Amino acid sequence: MSLVVVGSIGIDNIETPTAKKENLLGGSAVYFAYAAGFFTKVEMVGVVGKDFPAEYRVLMQKNNVDLAGLEVADGQTFRWSGKYHEDINNRDTLEVQLNVLGSFDPKVPEAYKNRDFLFLANAVPAVQHNVLKQMKKRPKFVAMDTMNLWIEIARKDLDALLLEVDMLVLNDGEARQYTDERELLKAGRAILKKGPKIVIIKKGEHGALVISAEGNFSIPAYPLEVVADPTGAGDTFAGAIMGYMTAANAVDRNTLRRAVAYGSVVASFTCEDFSLGKLEKISRKEIDARFKELLDLAHIPA
Amino acid sequence: MSLVVVGSIGIDNIETPTAKKENLLGGSAVYFAYAAGFFTKVEMVGVVGKDFPAEYRVLMQKNNVDLAGLEVADGQTFRWSGKYHEDINNRDTLEVQLNVLGSFDPKVPEAYKNRDFLFLANAVPAVQHNVLKQMKKRPKFVAMDTMNLWIEIARKDLDALLLEVDMLVLNDGEARQYTDERELLKAGRAILKKGPKIVIIKKGEHGALVISAEGNFSIPAYPLEVVADPTGAGDTFAGAIMGYMTAANAVDRNTLRRAVAYGSVVASFTCEDFSLGKLEKISRKEIDARFKELLDLAHIPA
Repeated sequence: MSLVVVGSIGIDNIETPTAKKENLLGGSAVYFAYAAGFFTKVEMVGVVGKDFPAEYRVLMQKNNVDLAGLEVADGQTFRWSGKYHEDINNRDTLEVQLNVLGSFDPKVPEAYKNRDFLFLANAVPAVQHNVLKQMKKRPKFVAMDTMNLWIEIARKDLDALLLEVDMLVLNDGEARQYTDERELLKAGRAILKKGPKIVIIKKGEHGALVISAEGNFSIPAYPLEVVADPTGAGDTFAGAIMGYMTAANAVDRNTLRRAVAYGSVVASFTCEDFSLGKLEKISRKEIDARFKELLDLAHIPA
Repeated sequence: MSLVVVGSIGIDNIETPTAKKENLLGGSAVYFAYAAGFFTKVEMVGVVGKDFPAEYRVLMQKNNVDLAGLEVADGQTFRWSGKYHEDINNRDTLEVQLNVLGSFDPKVPEAYKNRDFLFLANAVPAVQHNVLKQMKKRPKFVAMDTMNLWIEIARKDLDALLLEVDMLVLNDGEARQYTDERELLKAGRAILKKGPKIVIIKKGEHGALVISAEGNFSIPAYPLEVVADPTGAGDTFAGAIMGYMTAANAVDRNTLRRAVAYGSVVASFTCEDFSLGKLEKISRKEIDARFKELLDLAHIPA
């Protein structure tokens, strides 16, 4: 089985309270795809400029990511600069240069169009929808992420897209903003009424809450002594979830729960270094070991 | 088995974004004892003024709380007024009248002095220590709570007391303040070095993290659609934990985990109404039913 993802590919400059790094590989599709690549073959649809470093292609390919859907457009790659606060759970965006992403018109390669698992990583809802429409048949499972900006300026498009997806992944602030509900349980239930069968609300260092008609599920974050850089944690969380489900070729309750636990594990590794720094150093073996630790961390003896 | 608790007993005025209530029964020992009373006999040491309503005594006694250690002093009962923000996880203290609590000199009844389980609910560390010293033998298990004020103005006394307790329960902000560590895992480990074998860090709506040499444990909060008033949630969390452990007469890893899960359940009920409003309406049966729901909520299929 393989998994198709569309989303942003970027070059990031990131400042944390303890370090400052430039020209890092980033973007929602990149983080997602690299994480999913630990579990299954991933096919990435996205755009970069002619300046995109060849070594970043190699890095992705080495972890199971197919780049046939990676378009190289005239111009510069999308760039993002951010600065984290003393409390590393908060950050400010310092600069965004959309560059080639600004006119991104995704073209799904023919070979990808009959895939069963599709993830629409954070992007303009109309662009996400466009990709879904290019699929030859409706995939077995479609999931998506979004962000505060689209809830603000493209709510109608977001509502229309939500009617067609199985699962929405978003963070707690976004869930509250989208529904005007303070309590996440209420926010999640309000989103279920908009279409998806499953809502995953990311809570950063507090883990995530999964809300569905089949029952709710709470997953803790794997506790870390040091968080170097949380950029991409949410995207790798989603990537591991979808990667695990694709490999299992299943979307049932128990598969979803295990997938979300793997998501929490991979997201924790992401936080331990900048960009894909830590993920590059680990394999499925380290992920499985931490998955076992997470099982124990969350275990209530009946 | 019975459980001894010392702490504050008060009359609260509480304002939330949706309601305002006056002359409510409150105080750390009250919330703790009432919650523990669902599991075991509780013996409460505290002080009230002559104005303390007789019906509040009856209420406590009906839920297994022995009041032989309740001193009635000349003057008024301790009073606290607080106002919750639009985000109900934050509040401001509007007024504190210490009244008889200001000169509280706890006297542990003879019959209580050989008990095996002791909880020092939030109070001046010197007062907490004084109670521990009055015990005839060192109890099998001593636990305590504290607050930001004592970390600020009585850190030395707190450090001295911590050397003699088995378990500290405190909230995330307090853990960070006490240790100067942002990450809770690091903060918890720093506190373990100060004496306790177990640290429970309360995270409000995000549940709690238990840190000990026997392994860490993360418990979610039971998700609620509506939080009416979170006052006392942390005290009832601790009360259910200690009540469960006392009834089990055990402090092993699995008992602790089950106890913490019961703590999360009882705290969730507390949040559903002002004061003991919701707890008065439930019995062990409703608690056990929600405990089962929490087991399912946190279950990762291996």
